[in-house]
Amino acid sequence: MTHKIAILGASGYTGAELVRLIATHPTMEIVALSADRKAGMDMSDVFPHLRHLDLPALCKIEAIDFSAVDLCFCALPHATSQRVIKDLPKDVKVVDLSADFRLRDPEEYVKWYGGAHDALDCQAEAVYGLTEFYRDDIKTARLVAGTGCNAATGQYILSPLIKAGVIDFDQIILDLKCAVSGAGRSLKENLLHAELSEGYHAYAVGGTHRHLGEFDQEFSKLAGRPVRIQFTPHLVPANRGILGTGYVHGDAKQVYDTLVETYKDEPFVEVLPFGQTPSTKHIRASNFCHIGVVADRIEGRAIVVAALDNLTKGSSGQALQNANLMLGEDETTGLMLAPVFP
Amino acid sequence: MTHKIAILGASGYTGAELVRLIATHPTMEIVALSADRKAGMDMSDVFPHLRHLDLPALCKIEAIDFSAVDLCFCALPHATSQRVIKDLPKDVKVVDLSADFRLRDPEEYVKWYGGAHDALDCQAEAVYGLTEFYRDDIKTARLVAGTGCNAATGQYILSPLIKAGVIDFDQIILDLKCAVSGAGRSLKENLLHAELSEGYHAYAVGGTHRHLGEFDQEFSKLAGRPVRIQFTPHLVPANRGILGTGYVHGDAKQVYDTLVETYKDEPFVEVLPFGQTPSTKHIRASNFCHIGVVADRIEGRAIVVAALDNLTKGSSGQALQNANLMLGEDETTGLMLAPVFP
Amino acid sequence: MTHKIAILGASGYTGAELVRLIATHPTMEIVALSADRKAGMDMSDVFPHLRHLDLPALCKIEAIDFSAVDLCFCALPHATSQRVIKDLPKDVKVVDLSADFRLRDPEEYVKWYGGAHDALDCQAEAVYGLTEFYRDDIKTARLVAGTGCNAATGQYILSPLIKAGVIDFDQIILDLKCAVSGAGRSLKENLLHAELSEGYHAYAVGGTHRHLGEFDQEFSKLAGRPVRIQFTPHLVPANRGILGTGYVHGDAKQVYDTLVETYKDEPFVEVLPFGQTPSTKHIRASNFCHIGVVADRIEGRAIVVAALDNLTKGSSGQALQNANLMLGEDETTGLMLAPVFP
Amino acid sequence: MTHKIAILGASGYTGAELVRLIATHPTMEIVALSADRKAGMDMSDVFPHLRHLDLPALCKIEAIDFSAVDLCFCALPHATSQRVIKDLPKDVKVVDLSADFRLRDPEEYVKWYGGAHDALDCQAEAVYGLTEFYRDDIKTARLVAGTGCNAATGQYILSPLIKAGVIDFDQIILDLKCAVSGAGRSLKENLLHAELSEGYHAYAVGGTHRHLGEFDQEFSKLAGRPVRIQFTPHLVPANRGILGTGYVHGDAKQVYDTLVETYKDEPFVEVLPFGQTPSTKHIRASNFCHIGVVADRIEGRAIVVAALDNLTKGSSGQALQNANLMLGEDETTGLMLAPVFP
Repeated sequence: MTHKIAILGASGYTGAELVRLIATHPTMEIVALSADRKAGMDMSDVFPHLRHLDLPALCKIEAIDFSAVDLCFCALPHATSQRVIKDLPKDVKVVDLSADFRLRDPEEYVKWYGGAHDALDCQAEAVYGLTEFYRDDIKTARLVAGTGCNAATGQYILSPLIKAGVIDFDQIILDLKCAVSGAGRSLKENLLHAELSEGYHAYAVGGTHRHLGEFDQEFSKLAGRPVRIQFTPHLVPANRGILGTGYVHGDAKQVYDTLVETYKDEPFVEVLPFGQTPSTKHIRASNFCHIGVVADRIEGRAIVVAALDNLTKGSSGQALQNANLMLGEDETTGLMLAPVFP
Repeated sequence: MTHKIAILGASGYTGAELVRLIATHPTMEIVALSADRKAGMDMSDVFPHLRHLDLPALCKIEAIDFSAVDLCFCALPHATSQRVIKDLPKDVKVVDLSADFRLRDPEEYVKWYGGAHDALDCQAEAVYGLTEFYRDDIKTARLVAGTGCNAATGQYILSPLIKAGVIDFDQIILDLKCAVSGAGRSLKENLLHAELSEGYHAYAVGGTHRHLGEFDQEFSKLAGRPVRIQFTPHLVPANRGILGTGYVHGDAKQVYDTLVETYKDEPFVEVLPFGQTPSTKHIRASNFCHIGVVADRIEGRAIVVAALDNLTKGSSGQALQNANLMLGEDETTGLMLAPVFP
Repeated sequence: MTHKIAILGASGYTGAELVRLIATHPTMEIVALSADRKAGMDMSDVFPHLRHLDLPALCKIEAIDFSAVDLCFCALPHATSQRVIKDLPKDVKVVDLSADFRLRDPEEYVKWYGGAHDALDCQAEAVYGLTEFYRDDIKTARLVAGTGCNAATGQYILSPLIKAGVIDFDQIILDLKCAVSGAGRSLKENLLHAELSEGYHAYAVGGTHRHLGEFDQEFSKLAGRPVRIQFTPHLVPANRGILGTGYVHGDAKQVYDTLVETYKDEPFVEVLPFGQTPSTKHIRASNFCHIGVVADRIEGRAIVVAALDNLTKGSSGQALQNANLMLGEDETTGLMLAPVFP
Repeated sequence: MTHKIAILGASGYTGAELVRLIATHPTMEIVALSADRKAGMDMSDVFPHLRHLDLPALCKIEAIDFSAVDLCFCALPHATSQRVIKDLPKDVKVVDLSADFRLRDPEEYVKWYGGAHDALDCQAEAVYGLTEFYRDDIKTARLVAGTGCNAATGQYILSPLIKAGVIDFDQIILDLKCAVSGAGRSLKENLLHAELSEGYHAYAVGGTHRHLGEFDQEFSKLAGRPVRIQFTPHLVPANRGILGTGYVHGDAKQVYDTLVETYKDEPFVEVLPFGQTPSTKHIRASNFCHIGVVADRIEGRAIVVAALDNLTKGSSGQALQNANLMLGEDETTGLMLAPVFP
């Protein structure tokens, strides 16, 4: 049986990554690709790397016959996504890659995204899409909200530790290093090759990054009380990858054991031998997340480092993993592509 | 039916690329991986990006039971390859990725590689492995000699034009830009990040690059008389990719039509619309080759540009394509992975 | 004595490069910096790398008192430049970095730049600013037109050879590799880090690049008859640098001797030992140009490779070299900064 | 008056960087360059970017006439340095760039460097070379020990805060991102372009990096009691630059004021406006250090970020700054080169 797939917002990086992954998926067929301003163009004009594929031309959303669609990936910009999704037929399954349905509390949404939510019903219905922690809910969900790529990285490091109570909730620092594709295909001066290559810097320093909304929500829920972490993202001169360095107060061996236990049956999360740490180079273009734990020289402190590809495990790969579950497929279908090295 | 595969020299980049590709190949199983100096180690210690795979440990070649091997990829260094291959059981099919069996004429081998060949019988038997031009011979071959990555790029541009006689054989220039992984995982000062990043230069200028041996052999054969081209490779700060810019004297439209006709049924070679040229960015980590033709402002001259990934179409992907044919599989099996962008 | 300097269009890369160079120039003082849309801002807000300098705030051109200016660098966009320069007081010396005054023939200007020239008087007066070939004219010029960065590279390779008549004028190919800063600080999708890093491609293929107008003008003048070369620029993933690979028909030793003789007293052009070729890595952020010559295996053909930094020798450094001459300073003043490696 | 300068270990990156800086220094002249294994070669064969300079050929140390040397930069590997320096004539001033004389306590040296010190007399005499904090001692020193590049970055962030007592000494985390040239011109697999480009990772995690010896020594001295910080360096795909992200418990405004006050007269340390943070891109190839402070959303916590160029301010520039002081020159002589951007 073949699942009919639509991708809304196919002209961005996450849209293209979805097409790349679905290209070799055995039971999915792309029946519609939307891109508002590029409607009428061939996908290969926008993304020449996909020219070997037989794909539908880009169209406007209004032109899609959703009665012939089983599942719709929504890779639209934040805010646009909610306006589109609330009008989709209710029998179409939806995996949203935007930030619009990640926060459960409407007030938190207003706080982090600066405006009222336009589709509160959908927000109430949406399941948070971090597969490893919400697998059962995702299987039966109609609408899944993809986790932010930084937020995913931080949760792979911290969620099991907070849930198990093996670290001090008030002394958590997450220092993150992100590659540039996380910022999307947007024309900003600081994303130019000449501005970024050979340089790196912190941004959204001091607790202003929107993914903190997700951290606050998820970590507080796990802890049963408010948890606020410190979080500093940095932009590094690479195209794909996120490396999160977590500083926690807790026994390193206990931290390690907790992570090993949590992820022991997970197909995509690999915990390295104790004392080893990962590189973004080793998960590139794949759905894998590598995690390592090291004991600090100061007793009672541990460093936990995780690496994943922001476009794959942090976004489109995660979305496909969820879609597999929603459609009754094995979670790993089409996603076991090995990382590309070097 | 599953084909039992051995990879000799699995600790280099082409070996790792073979494992990456075979990881999602439906009918191949890796039963042996050799790496002389790293025998005993796990592949994931040498290449952590492959740690999710269940692979045999690295071993010495002598430890491999070749009676349980259907096909052997040989990713050993030049010169070593011939000494190993001549001693392999004759009922094991072999795809060699080294330069050892590319040249048909022993004297040419001596000229370009600086020493007598050690396995002249095998050399006589070997089929030149540029699939698009030797497909029928490869299907029945026991030993296939993988084309050099620069040599493949140049031949995709020039072989159809020389065969069709639509260009002046004495006015051919090939200016090539290669990424660094083509040089392998070797500890050379000029391959250090600090030495290469942000800089680029020509090398082997003036006709000293060994791949000229392949060009001379193949082009002269097609032309029915000696053909000598000018060839300058350049090293650019990227990891994967070759871009060949061919300057030819001939009618651009005729050149274009010849390429379109030659490649019209080829699954991996895509000729772009007339006037467009390719980017290495759009074939990265895939087995595709993109080719474009432009007419020069000087009448009777054309520029033909081709892009491919040196590790995939230029080496391990090409090898797998040939192995598929040798084993009776569809040529594209396991190779339709879409390019990774961005 | 201190020369009062104004820089018009200081918010682009060539403007910033001028400031960088003048920062340690012993006899120049920057008295005005213009940037139309950023008027009122501090230079350090636009270019934080210059924050240690005590610079005038950015202003509109109208706000500059040109009676207190000795020499004005004009780093404005093409077409804008001519409209500004024609209205400048005639006693202010001007070094223009745009393309507006490079072509002598108004019809050629129309052909390459697609519109009539707005300041024909100035065009008639302007001196072509390739210092090594127009030194005497530059010394007494009021208006100097900076050479294009690609055009400069090609002329360092070819002009002496055409002038000496040691190569075949009808068989000249120039294959160029440019870094991305040559495209300026402009918001174009193909200049994004994610689009460019790890990839490379040809552009303006077939004789459509505007710098061909300069080649045609200068080479024909030297040859005493029309000369048309083939020219293909490529964009490579680096920030600074141009590498030109010239293919010529001529005796390599004679080619070499001609270049050695031409440049023997030049402070910034270095001819490498015969058989060696340069790297952009070795001239980065400096005003030097390195040139190498190799004999091809085909008798009677030579390859000449040149490397320079597009922002320095190809633009702002060249401009400062000319300004030194126009102001009666030693040509090398402030320009002997060693290349930055690695 | 011209100071006669020798550079021992001139074939490494810090040696080359010294030559680059001294090339435009008005009162220094390089009279000797040593490189043991490359003795006899021209510097331009080892570093072609320096070919425009008139430099002495590389020689063995034994060949240097130190009676004609005023000051000697020692850019030799750790351990080698001490054996060489102890035998130098005592009237030659020495700036050492290795780690050999940074630690005051011989036992700490053994602990971090794994062997007994070979020149304890010199170790006792050496002055720690972080100019901003040891300026007076450096002026009269004979032997100055250059600070480690990571150690310098951390101290610019933390030393003033510890000295002023405005942060909690037991809750200091320094997350560092270093470019690759810090590892030197050494043939290691992990420094190859193909291994590093497009990837990044942590190393020496958990408190094993040798620069912690410097932190422990300096911070404990300033605090008047033992201070142990957490420190994680990361390797990022860039050639030059260190970005240190310091997490401290303390009032952000007080932290900021302390840094502003400390550095207000420093020529090379720039404190950005409150709330802004620096980029390595803006200090590249210069002797400047940019520092920024941001208040975290958690009250009582601040993030301090510093950027410097590891080869310049972190090593050779710092060394030259010290040499200027030792020779009675203005500290900034030859060092006011503006950063290279882009």
